[in-house]
Amino acid sequence: MREVTQPATEAIRLAEVLRALADPVRLEIVQRLDRTGQENCTALGGEIDVHQTTLSHHYRVLREAGVTWTTVQGRSRLVRLRRNDLDALFPGLLDSVLAGRMREIATTSAIETP
Amino acid sequence: MREVTQPATEAIRLAEVLRALADPVRLEIVQRLDRTGQENCTALGGEIDVHQTTLSHHYRVLREAGVTWTTVQGRSRLVRLRRNDLDALFPGLLDSVLAGRMREIATTSAIETP
Repeated sequence: MREVTQPATEAIRLAEVLRALADPVRLEIVQRLDRTGQENCTALGGEIDVHQTTLSHHYRVLREAGVTWTTVQGRSRLVRLRRNDLDALFPGLLDSVLAGRMREIATTSAIETP
Repeated sequence: MREVTQPATEAIRLAEVLRALADPVRLEIVQRLDRTGQENCTALGGEIDVHQTTLSHHYRVLREAGVTWTTVQGRSRLVRLRRNDLDALFPGLLDSVLAGRMREIATTSAIETP
């Protein structure tokens, strides 16, 4: 099993979490993970319209900030949200970000679709 | 009166707001503004330990993301949080970020001060 670097709960920092969330593609990844619980990195990549290298970068940013937890199983990387950690450290943050994103998507779609 | 660029409410984007908040100095500025209501940029600079040029950069990032609203009065720039806009667009976000920061500061101080 290959090792992946990811911070212990007490090493998660607010500014790093916010920076990790501050990107439309990463917000999309987080939203999917919130819905599905856990994803295989490669499978998730197939449904998001960015290059695999770019996607790997986004996964790393999320993981290193402590937003996601990655488990390596053979050739697969299973990714899930660290919801318990984030909710304990920054209560309400993840929920408000996810709700804000849903609202933003709905508003933008409403404007773009006459 | 010089003009400053700042987005209309409907042009504020979640990813930009998160990016603006994703910095310890900017979090400190936001926390102060939340406490005081409004600040003169220069006065605020005196109490935060970074160079004025760096501080001007941070103010610009906050303003252009729609986190703060700046009013130019003579040679002063008065800055305040766009709390109503942010609370309407992303309910709970600003509060969870501010609470998370307070908690983080308290925890870090407790560890560093035996």
